[in-house]
Amino acid sequence: MVTPRDFVCTTPFTFKSGQVLPGFTMRYETYGQLNRARDNAILICHALSGDHHCAGRHSAADRKPGWWDHLIGPGRAVDTDRFYVICANCLGGCSGTTGPSSIDPATGKSYGIAFPFVTINDMVRSQKRLLDHLGVDQLHAVIGGSMGGMQALLWAILYPNFVRRVLAMATTAREGAQAIAFNEVGRQAIMQDPAWEQGNYPADGGPRVGLAIARMMAHITYLSDASMERKFGRRKRVTTTTAHGENPYSFDIQFEVESYLRYQGQSFINRFDANSYLYITRALDHFDLAHAYGSLEQAFAPVQAETLVVGFTSDWLFPPEQNREIALTLLRAGKRASYAELATDRGHDSFLLESPDLYRIVRGFLEREHEFVLDFSI
Amino acid sequence: MVTPRDFVCTTPFTFKSGQVLPGFTMRYETYGQLNRARDNAILICHALSGDHHCAGRHSAADRKPGWWDHLIGPGRAVDTDRFYVICANCLGGCSGTTGPSSIDPATGKSYGIAFPFVTINDMVRSQKRLLDHLGVDQLHAVIGGSMGGMQALLWAILYPNFVRRVLAMATTAREGAQAIAFNEVGRQAIMQDPAWEQGNYPADGGPRVGLAIARMMAHITYLSDASMERKFGRRKRVTTTTAHGENPYSFDIQFEVESYLRYQGQSFINRFDANSYLYITRALDHFDLAHAYGSLEQAFAPVQAETLVVGFTSDWLFPPEQNREIALTLLRAGKRASYAELATDRGHDSFLLESPDLYRIVRGFLEREHEFVLDFSI
Repeated sequence: MVTPRDFVCTTPFTFKSGQVLPGFTMRYETYGQLNRARDNAILICHALSGDHHCAGRHSAADRKPGWWDHLIGPGRAVDTDRFYVICANCLGGCSGTTGPSSIDPATGKSYGIAFPFVTINDMVRSQKRLLDHLGVDQLHAVIGGSMGGMQALLWAILYPNFVRRVLAMATTAREGAQAIAFNEVGRQAIMQDPAWEQGNYPADGGPRVGLAIARMMAHITYLSDASMERKFGRRKRVTTTTAHGENPYSFDIQFEVESYLRYQGQSFINRFDANSYLYITRALDHFDLAHAYGSLEQAFAPVQAETLVVGFTSDWLFPPEQNREIALTLLRAGKRASYAELATDRGHDSFLLESPDLYRIVRGFLEREHEFVLDFSI
Repeated sequence: MVTPRDFVCTTPFTFKSGQVLPGFTMRYETYGQLNRARDNAILICHALSGDHHCAGRHSAADRKPGWWDHLIGPGRAVDTDRFYVICANCLGGCSGTTGPSSIDPATGKSYGIAFPFVTINDMVRSQKRLLDHLGVDQLHAVIGGSMGGMQALLWAILYPNFVRRVLAMATTAREGAQAIAFNEVGRQAIMQDPAWEQGNYPADGGPRVGLAIARMMAHITYLSDASMERKFGRRKRVTTTTAHGENPYSFDIQFEVESYLRYQGQSFINRFDANSYLYITRALDHFDLAHAYGSLEQAFAPVQAETLVVGFTSDWLFPPEQNREIALTLLRAGKRASYAELATDRGHDSFLLESPDLYRIVRGFLEREHEFVLDFSI
């Protein structure tokens, strides 16, 4: 069993935007024990819709374990018998860490869109305070996929002496035009929903329709054409009947894939805050290491960590090329980096799914010392 | 100058669903002249958001010509000095042909979603009535891209003695799971908009927000990652300023690509009916020639036309493989078919864009006699 805890930071936090919060709360979980040498800590960074609960169960009655439980645990690829694993809900999130749905002590109401703008940089610097609080003064590794991978890269840039290994998967050094475009459609679906009320919706209300639409669309970008064909194809699910029998022509659910997407949308609105969705997608949009540091080589100049980047062939949100470019640029900048490309048809979400190949790569990277390869052929 | 005309069909029309309309109006345009031998007619079939105005201008003041004007006209690849070209707004559409926004004579109000369900089959059979009315008893060619390509294929199946050539581009013989998924998100955006009012919105109202969201999302699927990078990249368009100057953190438009998408959404709602969008996307979803005829070979068994299929390398809505499969299956069924694959980074919309390679292929196909090649290398 694992129990989420809250780190309450009472030192003012200045966001990249210049805005300041007097402090913040960060919800996190830990697995395993920090050893005496304090050199076995691993930080896990979650993606857009993830949270701090990456492994284990909160109670025996839990239907599902944490979102990366097949990767993280006793004897697993990220072995909690050996490593002290930490995962925190990101700043701006809605699973216990301070974000737009938190109460602003100055007004007694939710911040809404008065919350400071959040960047990946802010997420990393706020996580650093948590690690300081936990007495962690170096990281064996930072691991993350998608937005978590962006954080992992930035960890190695902002705190080069702190991070020994970076494992970034299904990610990018620069959010591209198509990804921004999908984020913008999701935001418009939310902000144009009348229930958004300029961000000032009540805690029990909000733009549920818009958020569900945003999630349905985004979910398509996490899969692949091939995986959707395999899972659903054109299988029907006829729910409407007429006096003459089943009605094959209707705007109700007719195909399995429609039923699946509607379920994804509906379950998301019960666990995610619409304003957090706006903030975090904007944080993604603003992520561009080359622009922030002049060039990607310059961004990586301070890095001391050994980096492993993993791309997935069917990921069309952050395609293999964008992952490969990270490793190649690190190598050009004289850093220790390797790249593995996993052949899979499961799309962007591959990094979240069970994969013995991925386990083998992760375990090898965490356990080996100073060895690097560029491997395109797994 | 070209003038749209209305064909008023007063014979009852039975839809594939079994529903019947006492008649329908079909708006169309023609270019060039039907020759004495009546053997120079070409039918153009439009895509989801297209209409009958595929070439020329309605008046000298027109800002833009028809949507395929660079392909169709005097001396162009589809040479209207030589061919008699016909293009009609599809049944279920909203540009003059009878559809959900038309007045139901039985009630004096718009049909809304009481309109019969429309299939690609219905679109083709209703076009056939127009051609009969125009005295056209054979087609030199049927040409269409995307949904227009589906119609073109079905023309050759339903009226084998009528069609001598089929030119289908950026299309598929079977709407796949990912394409259905995107259509469903668009429909949900429309139907969950309170202004949809179960399809009974007034002519001057309707789910404008939902329709704009649907269009923004769909528009991304018509482009490609590479073309969006080239056109927009991460170029900023800062519209919000604070007392301290430009605000780089905002949910307003910040990137060019956002501005472009919002424009696409806004301009669409001024020319398209939301219920038509529901009907036509459903028609796409239901398109599956293999399922309708037992197998794709069996579907193509009656075909007598020579067929050219054109795929575009960066089209991820109806990818090259799906286009190639059409030509290969026609060949397996003993038909005359060829396939050309154009290397372009402009995505699905490539078929609508200027391309000397495409012009050369189209002209060659329309003017040659009984010659066929399988060409993957253009």
